[in-house]
Amino acid sequence: MAGSTRKGKSQNLPEPPLRPLWWDGKVLCLLDQSLLPGQEKILRLDRASQVYQAIRSLKVRGAPAIGVAAAYGVVLAAKKYLHSPPGRLRTEVARTIARLRQARPTAYNLFYALDRMEKVLACVKGTSEELVAALLCEARTFHQEDLRSGWSIGEYGWRLVKPNSNLLTHCNAGALATSGFGTALSLCYAAVRHGVNFHVYVDETRPVLQGARLTAYELKKAGIPCTLICDSMAAFLMAQGKVDLVVVGADRIAGNGDTANKIGTYQLALAAHRHHLPFYVAAPLSTFHPELPDGQAIPVEERAAEEVTTIHGYRLAPEGTKVYNPAFDITPARFIAGFITEKGIIRPPYRRSLKTLLRE
Amino acid sequence: MAGSTRKGKSQNLPEPPLRPLWWDGKVLCLLDQSLLPGQEKILRLDRASQVYQAIRSLKVRGAPAIGVAAAYGVVLAAKKYLHSPPGRLRTEVARTIARLRQARPTAYNLFYALDRMEKVLACVKGTSEELVAALLCEARTFHQEDLRSGWSIGEYGWRLVKPNSNLLTHCNAGALATSGFGTALSLCYAAVRHGVNFHVYVDETRPVLQGARLTAYELKKAGIPCTLICDSMAAFLMAQGKVDLVVVGADRIAGNGDTANKIGTYQLALAAHRHHLPFYVAAPLSTFHPELPDGQAIPVEERAAEEVTTIHGYRLAPEGTKVYNPAFDITPARFIAGFITEKGIIRPPYRRSLKTLLRE
Repeated sequence: MAGSTRKGKSQNLPEPPLRPLWWDGKVLCLLDQSLLPGQEKILRLDRASQVYQAIRSLKVRGAPAIGVAAAYGVVLAAKKYLHSPPGRLRTEVARTIARLRQARPTAYNLFYALDRMEKVLACVKGTSEELVAALLCEARTFHQEDLRSGWSIGEYGWRLVKPNSNLLTHCNAGALATSGFGTALSLCYAAVRHGVNFHVYVDETRPVLQGARLTAYELKKAGIPCTLICDSMAAFLMAQGKVDLVVVGADRIAGNGDTANKIGTYQLALAAHRHHLPFYVAAPLSTFHPELPDGQAIPVEERAAEEVTTIHGYRLAPEGTKVYNPAFDITPARFIAGFITEKGIIRPPYRRSLKTLLRE
Repeated sequence: MAGSTRKGKSQNLPEPPLRPLWWDGKVLCLLDQSLLPGQEKILRLDRASQVYQAIRSLKVRGAPAIGVAAAYGVVLAAKKYLHSPPGRLRTEVARTIARLRQARPTAYNLFYALDRMEKVLACVKGTSEELVAALLCEARTFHQEDLRSGWSIGEYGWRLVKPNSNLLTHCNAGALATSGFGTALSLCYAAVRHGVNFHVYVDETRPVLQGARLTAYELKKAGIPCTLICDSMAAFLMAQGKVDLVVVGADRIAGNGDTANKIGTYQLALAAHRHHLPFYVAAPLSTFHPELPDGQAIPVEERAAEEVTTIHGYRLAPEGTKVYNPAFDITPARFIAGFITEKGIIRPPYRRSLKTLLRE
């Protein structure tokens, strides 16, 4: 996939609403999302191990952003061993790729990005300098593709956002989750560019509160009217006719369209289904894992109890309370009206539509 | 209803797992539930205005407990004006009843309890001492009835809890929400008394976290195995076959069975329905408002944005974030398998079943 020529509808991208990560020529710069909205702190990472930790600890999160960060993590490892014997360089890069694969299990973009970096490692047979340059080039290409994909998703999807309608979203599938335009929220940014007025309901998204902390933050920054709700309020909003459209992101999409996304997505999809509301998933093709037969095959990460029992060190539940904390759930394809990708909207039957799209 | 002889199946009640409020002969003692689980503080209230504030600020919460607290609040007002001219005493008691009706809008038990106190005020024509004594007697009777109702709900409902099964509950419909046995959790306490082993999944119940703070607290105290989850995880648990039964409490039940309960109940009922799981509501008859045609007529309280945007003073969402915070939602009767009351389990058609039961 190195040198892939995937493109959006147009070459001229507007400036994205936010850039949560960038390569400054030497290090990977990351907006520490675990501190938002209270603090806007930029991390400068010069070690792959720091990238690994940043992914694990949700300093960078969102499937597309994780993929981009991991690609640069491989570059950092290569740069570190640039002056080692070439064999050592290759071994260490391969080891870093293997290590980064362990950072988080669900988001497919991580594996997609690392597969691409691995292909560069396998194909480029030149000097150490050439290998490092090729890896950096691939990471930058992937980064640019992700930026363009986000923008393109918005351009394909924004017409779903009707004038004066109410969109509901879960977690943060925004600029912060990607290289800069978002997936679900890219529809919002595009709708604004095209002059559509609308309003967004934001699920707070327990336990890590990506909705309250991140989506509310970036929509507010962009001047898009929004209202924060608790996750459990969505169905009641729908029953009152207050929701017209639901759009979420994705962490991994199986070949049949079953989708892993932030915990709570499935419950939201059931509520939307009951109320006959369109439920869309917005994701770049790097989130699709067509070899997986269905959602049952997607590994779902379980995270620490403390994410649920404490907030900012304050204890919410009694000491010793047992917790089940899956970070994602699986929404069966039948509840999904379509996938908004950088190549267009995919409709059921998904297996066939996806094959057609990937062949293009 | 003064001197009502409503009884459970048996006269001999075991000691309840917890007593969140009691009359000590002079004042109303309340376990301050807003401080749990971190702090177990008993409030001693000797003014009706304190009871009003305690209800509004969720120091006492849970529909049945609110009703009992309000009844004692009326007694406190009567005691305060015991030595005033009798006309003044009656005026002030009537004013207190009217004021307490404003404390919170949704829980019907509050109005049920105050209606009973108002009837005493209207019927007892004796001296001031006799009136105060009659009001205290009625509050105590209502309190005892509520304790017995909770116990009786458990005795009628516990067989729904199958051996080695998993029950899921939302909010706190436990001892803390009543005079001591709970409604939904009374099934659990009864099942334990009858030797049944089972496990409870506890929805944390955003925004006020009654599940994490109160239900986990009282189940732990009682030694009942439980696991805390976020509200948005329930459907995913169900999809994995990890839930056998859902039981919740209620704040008000309309004549057709539509039920107001803690926000998130409706979403949970939809998920249970989709997974063909029995979804029961446990509530004393004081929660039923048979004159209301359906759920549309139930007033739903909206509470402050800060409940959603801050936890213990720590800000979760950006300053100025708009919030929608309904404290309750309405679950249509068709999603409810039955109501577990102190007189037995009510099955559809609810309007007819309820009439039969109330005539008995």
